[in-house]
Amino acid sequence: MNFPSRIIENAVNEFAKLPGVGRKTALRFVLHMLRQDENQVNLFSESMQKLKKELKFCKNCFNISDNELCEICSSYKRDHTLVCVVEDIRDVMAIENTGQYNGIYHILGGIISPMDGIGPTDLNIEPLIEKAKNNQIKEIIMALSTTMEGDTTNFYLYKKLNTFPVIVSTIARGISLGDQLEYADEVTLGRSITHRTLYETNLK
Amino acid sequence: MNFPSRIIENAVNEFAKLPGVGRKTALRFVLHMLRQDENQVNLFSESMQKLKKELKFCKNCFNISDNELCEICSSYKRDHTLVCVVEDIRDVMAIENTGQYNGIYHILGGIISPMDGIGPTDLNIEPLIEKAKNNQIKEIIMALSTTMEGDTTNFYLYKKLNTFPVIVSTIARGISLGDQLEYADEVTLGRSITHRTLYETNLK
Repeated sequence: MNFPSRIIENAVNEFAKLPGVGRKTALRFVLHMLRQDENQVNLFSESMQKLKKELKFCKNCFNISDNELCEICSSYKRDHTLVCVVEDIRDVMAIENTGQYNGIYHILGGIISPMDGIGPTDLNIEPLIEKAKNNQIKEIIMALSTTMEGDTTNFYLYKKLNTFPVIVSTIARGISLGDQLEYADEVTLGRSITHRTLYETNLK
Repeated sequence: MNFPSRIIENAVNEFAKLPGVGRKTALRFVLHMLRQDENQVNLFSESMQKLKKELKFCKNCFNISDNELCEICSSYKRDHTLVCVVEDIRDVMAIENTGQYNGIYHILGGIISPMDGIGPTDLNIEPLIEKAKNNQIKEIIMALSTTMEGDTTNFYLYKKLNTFPVIVSTIARGISLGDQLEYADEVTLGRSITHRTLYETNLK
């Protein structure tokens, strides 16, 4: 694309670095920004700079936080011996939305992905192992994606945590609500039978 | 969505104002920005501010330009009596890419759209009429979208320009390259027959 101005070209290039944004969409964003008044554009660029300058990470769970400890880690109502391992804050938000979880989290900041050059040392794995080693936690729930990378990370963590007195579990894999059995893939369906849930009956 | 931090929430809200970006995509963008180093984030926000502060519009055609007159308007190789009326700079870029046009442009900065509260006075229509009135141009080619709004704008401009000694034309509507006739809509197919192109033969 030949842009009529270098300023436009720079702005398009910056927007095009966002995930899933090509140069056509980036140009659409830039033209939208051009139509805004200067105040609005300043607000936008300030909020970006604040992201890097003012944002803190919880020193316990590496969640994004406005303070030293995040709201979850500083809550006395939470079970601090139960830790859910997730990839990033989107997963924390998703699990929090369910209202079903009362433990704390540990955010890895990504998953092991050799294709993207992300190895175990790039993630917050060491602090998790420290916690397990220091006997601070009873159970670790792995809640990572069911992708190749997620499984690799699961396996790596399991191997590392194996030697410490901590229960390691993983979230249930199975048929989603509303899914039809005939369209489910074999692996999921197979797992859903292997890991079936028992109804509570008098027999038990 | 409940965000763990106000800074994140602000940044997500800013991104979500972009066209076609919802809050989930906005959060994805924000997390991407968080993974960048500070230098990169500064580059991004600076390029946004430059957009508003340093960008000029060509005083002749209202194209985006680094100087008073854009490259096209200041080129002596261009036919300055042939003006192509377009909606925004994306259309200029698209037409320039064809390499088939040698005239200059006139950028309206939008099209008449009562639904979005855009009337004729919000667009660069008056300067176009001035140019026609002052006998500066021979032909005006209308190259607006084939939407309701595009047609309204076409009609409005045609009515305004009607009284001046200038030829008004519109880009050809017809079957696109690679289109199959059976799938073309009736209006397009009808127009492509009415405005058929004659082959040059000896008969002529």
